[in-house]
Amino acid sequence: MPQEYRIKFLPSDRVFPAERGDNLLEIAMQAGVHINASCGGRGVCGKCRVRIAGGSVESSGNPLLSDDDRAMGFRLACSSSITEDAVVEIPLESQIDRSILARSATLTDANVSAADELLTRLYGREPLVARYNCELPKPDANDNISDAARVARAVSVRAGCGEPAFPLGILRELSIDLREADWSITADVAPDTCEITRVARGNRESAHYAVAVDIGTTTVTAELIDCLASSAGSMVLASSTDYNGQISYGEDVISRIMYCRKRRGLTKLHDVIMSTINALISDIVPDAKVDAADITHIVAAGNTTMMHLFYGIDPRHIMLAPYTPAATAFSPSGVRGLGFMPGLDARLYSVPGVSSYVGGDIVSGVALSGMTEKGGISLFMDIGTNGEIVLGNNEWLLCASCSAGPAFEGGGIGFGMRAAPGAIEKVRINQATLEPMILTIGRVRPLGICGSGLIDLVAELFIGGIIDRNGRFSLQKQGIRLREGPNGMEYVLCFASETGTERDITLTEIDLDNIMRTKAAVYAGCSVLLQNGGIGFTDLDSVIIAGGFGHSIDIEKAIIIGLLPQLPVDRFRFMGNASLGGARTAAVSRGFFAKTADIARSMTNIELSENAQFMNEFMAAMFLPHTDDRAFPEVIDALKAGRE
Amino acid sequence: MPQEYRIKFLPSDRVFPAERGDNLLEIAMQAGVHINASCGGRGVCGKCRVRIAGGSVESSGNPLLSDDDRAMGFRLACSSSITEDAVVEIPLESQIDRSILARSATLTDANVSAADELLTRLYGREPLVARYNCELPKPDANDNISDAARVARAVSVRAGCGEPAFPLGILRELSIDLREADWSITADVAPDTCEITRVARGNRESAHYAVAVDIGTTTVTAELIDCLASSAGSMVLASSTDYNGQISYGEDVISRIMYCRKRRGLTKLHDVIMSTINALISDIVPDAKVDAADITHIVAAGNTTMMHLFYGIDPRHIMLAPYTPAATAFSPSGVRGLGFMPGLDARLYSVPGVSSYVGGDIVSGVALSGMTEKGGISLFMDIGTNGEIVLGNNEWLLCASCSAGPAFEGGGIGFGMRAAPGAIEKVRINQATLEPMILTIGRVRPLGICGSGLIDLVAELFIGGIIDRNGRFSLQKQGIRLREGPNGMEYVLCFASETGTERDITLTEIDLDNIMRTKAAVYAGCSVLLQNGGIGFTDLDSVIIAGGFGHSIDIEKAIIIGLLPQLPVDRFRFMGNASLGGARTAAVSRGFFAKTADIARSMTNIELSENAQFMNEFMAAMFLPHTDDRAFPEVIDALKAGRE
Repeated sequence: MPQEYRIKFLPSDRVFPAERGDNLLEIAMQAGVHINASCGGRGVCGKCRVRIAGGSVESSGNPLLSDDDRAMGFRLACSSSITEDAVVEIPLESQIDRSILARSATLTDANVSAADELLTRLYGREPLVARYNCELPKPDANDNISDAARVARAVSVRAGCGEPAFPLGILRELSIDLREADWSITADVAPDTCEITRVARGNRESAHYAVAVDIGTTTVTAELIDCLASSAGSMVLASSTDYNGQISYGEDVISRIMYCRKRRGLTKLHDVIMSTINALISDIVPDAKVDAADITHIVAAGNTTMMHLFYGIDPRHIMLAPYTPAATAFSPSGVRGLGFMPGLDARLYSVPGVSSYVGGDIVSGVALSGMTEKGGISLFMDIGTNGEIVLGNNEWLLCASCSAGPAFEGGGIGFGMRAAPGAIEKVRINQATLEPMILTIGRVRPLGICGSGLIDLVAELFIGGIIDRNGRFSLQKQGIRLREGPNGMEYVLCFASETGTERDITLTEIDLDNIMRTKAAVYAGCSVLLQNGGIGFTDLDSVIIAGGFGHSIDIEKAIIIGLLPQLPVDRFRFMGNASLGGARTAAVSRGFFAKTADIARSMTNIELSENAQFMNEFMAAMFLPHTDDRAFPEVIDALKAGRE
Repeated sequence: MPQEYRIKFLPSDRVFPAERGDNLLEIAMQAGVHINASCGGRGVCGKCRVRIAGGSVESSGNPLLSDDDRAMGFRLACSSSITEDAVVEIPLESQIDRSILARSATLTDANVSAADELLTRLYGREPLVARYNCELPKPDANDNISDAARVARAVSVRAGCGEPAFPLGILRELSIDLREADWSITADVAPDTCEITRVARGNRESAHYAVAVDIGTTTVTAELIDCLASSAGSMVLASSTDYNGQISYGEDVISRIMYCRKRRGLTKLHDVIMSTINALISDIVPDAKVDAADITHIVAAGNTTMMHLFYGIDPRHIMLAPYTPAATAFSPSGVRGLGFMPGLDARLYSVPGVSSYVGGDIVSGVALSGMTEKGGISLFMDIGTNGEIVLGNNEWLLCASCSAGPAFEGGGIGFGMRAAPGAIEKVRINQATLEPMILTIGRVRPLGICGSGLIDLVAELFIGGIIDRNGRFSLQKQGIRLREGPNGMEYVLCFASETGTERDITLTEIDLDNIMRTKAAVYAGCSVLLQNGGIGFTDLDSVIIAGGFGHSIDIEKAIIIGLLPQLPVDRFRFMGNASLGGARTAAVSRGFFAKTADIARSMTNIELSENAQFMNEFMAAMFLPHTDDRAFPEVIDALKAGRE
């Protein structure tokens, strides 16, 4: 019989049994202890640093850990196996922190006003599932049609549809329901299929709720929607956000897909996302003081991989050329059998996607942005681990996904991290002394640098001439801040004594390279779409930036590094979590939900992964701000002015 | 711990354990030993006579058993409880015998030619579920839509429908199916909802089968249908009939509904009907040498109670005024969760019914009869335990059910029995000697009298003046055959020495009363419908007699007793099992199936149970042939001639 050991995790104090040889990262996952792990446990990201505070583990050497780190007890969890009882401390930067999430979950004004305009002007307010109280006449000898026909007769009058269909589960309870409720019932009806989705006893017409859920790779947000609210601003009764529990199985979609190749990997990831969603619903339902039984429908939006995992569909072909997902659209269905919490008996709708890398989250956001209602051409961007971009207007739509890499979410950057407390989000550099001024989220000791901080930092380094147009450090500026590090030249943003991790926070040329790749991929993707649309950047009416990332970036800095095209600042519009906004709007409007399907159908997906035009554009964008100065005249002017 | 006893049943030799106090009828049911039991175990029908051939049981006295019977070891199983080991012999007349069933299962000519005409002239051949082989282009970088969209694209071209929907179960397997099958798959599509119901690997288009099942209260028949057959005559590849396993729980629908009030009674009856159906399907699939996976759909027809039990819906309100069923129409669904045999993954359709006592079996038969396609008015009759009647043409339809009582199926008749071997089916009586000439089914020793035998017998007794117009025996004819019995006057059809039961087979005035009630109810029901339709019997173009009962009756004798109206014999048409014929036809024709829904919707149900007009007509029909001589001029003439 194998010997059992006890592994204690700090700071949570959680204790979990393990056997000799068990992998430490897997034990943490099983114990529900989150450790950042970008690469899915392959030992290549170095994110799963833990400190062995008691006992010991057996670890393979890994170049991502210095000898100093090892001496201090640091190990990579993914490369460590159990040999005895151990106490494992998860350092701050390896923990995930939920407190930051509340920020991104708030409704953005742009989001709300877009929804109100669309609902009022175009799509009307008719929830995806309708709710009708029916006060039925009691049967007598002259009117003894079946119970189902009696309900159907009343519903078809209220709903203006044909003869509604009943699922068997409802028929089996119907006779008792009708008599116990003395012939006063409330029928939930899906008008698209003219199907009765539930029958409740009594009059519940005034309690009509839905859940909108945005299933992101990193974070998941659920909102409780009042289907009877008169405006988009008042329809969100409660909201909750948490990290996607799958994050412990890999930070990006590729890692998740890889994990699905393990035995029962798909089942595990499905179970984990359902736990995350159920926990969110369990938060918002009591918050809003509603009865879960009055939630008539759920609208989900997410990227194509997330939707596969949510529905329990193997996503493996998403990462294999020619990148075909199993499905991008999912028929409305009951929630049963999907692992939703008990007591929830709603109909589930999902916003359809377009391709493996342009999912329902993008379609949802594009629909909400209103860009498809106008003649003027808009560019829609959602920059996360992938950059998804959509170009078009009310007549045509082109879309693409550029594997931008996760640089702006902290991936591939030595001290990169997500936008969480301790992340450096704003940077200014004194161009004479090279001394920085930084602000962290939560105003606590810095732990690392998040996306907006990286954009600021690179722009400042570039404007100050500390890096050149190739993203290389200028040797002339060497000093305390700009020094030779173990991996070449590096800029020290914070010294160890100032940080929360007791390590210097630096930016290396390797980091710069990754940032350049990311920004070049996004810009090149936009360029290819524009060329395919036969227009130039200056023809754009608006640039819509969706997603949590866009929320906090400095547009002008993003233009300086050539991530965004140089356009007047008033043409940029931040939509916040447009995916969630679209799902929320669909919940209260059949017409809007139907529009998302139209949009998904009409988008032409341009595959960039093996596209020669994209490679050319990408290479051209691997400069700061770009090879083509004419596209960034003001940046070039500013540079010249600064260096004169 | 309770003492266990061993109960052995003869002639099957089956042995089953029981505990002290267990009810003998329930033990037999659990053991799968069938004993006729009309009343559902209430001790009032006297049908569950068994002989205790070894050991003993404790029985309450029951007036339905004579002292002689008791002395010979006969007991009523429903009133007996276990006290020790016992050997229980099921007498022939209490057994049910499957051999007779083959007869009724054969296709009747009328049935086949009606289907062929309807399909050719009106409804076309388009199976309820279509089957399309799709040879899909392999995805490449220029065509990398999702796997589901690839299938949908091909199917929508073949099916001429919009974008088909995929159930989640199919999506979860789709990517593997497509690749394992090298992009050649067969999609089953329900055109009504444009839903893909299954995806099979490879080209299965030429193997396209359905199952038609008629769920009768007494018998169940399943047929394997070739959806690609060119004619109704050739489309039935195999057929199997068995008694409905529920028969042990009560012979009529009321007994079954009563049984559902017991704890887990509904579940039990549902399980039993599913076992019966599964056994039939297990018969026909190998008979026809097909793969169960190639059965794309099942079409079921049955009376309203049977459909409730089949779908697992509590039927209790069917027997409570005002007689509202839970449902008469059932939405198409998958077979999963209903208890069908593994390996079957078909879509299930049911022919809709009208009311608690006019079910889908009647609608199915009416549709097949073609009466709704003609201007001339037809009367459709199905006489079983209930008499269901439908009147109308291509413009209007009236229907009713008269609780005729089970006299013609042997119920309420001392020596009545179902049409099984040993049943007397033909009777002639020498009017001088009163000596009978009889024929039994299977030409074996007589065990009892079935419906057609009863009609013959009563007509002969009436024509011969042995009974008067009130159904009372004529005291002048008393003799060996006509004698005073324990329950008043009785006619002896067979003496004990000639029978297979060693008891005299007799017909009493109580029996005559029950037969009169049955025939009066049927005739009165017809009269009420005709009056509501504003027509007389002679206005009828045709009288269609459906069901196993009609199969063997002598029309002229049925007119003599006033069961059928007096019309030229060529206006009567036997349809055989029209319910099954309709289900079979629907399986290969969407148009025909849609027609059944139209028919169900357009039938006006006339409730007879508390109808004063019906009571008047019923009283008027409680004579032979009827109070109103003008309705039966030829019978009256024949009587006069016979007695002059």
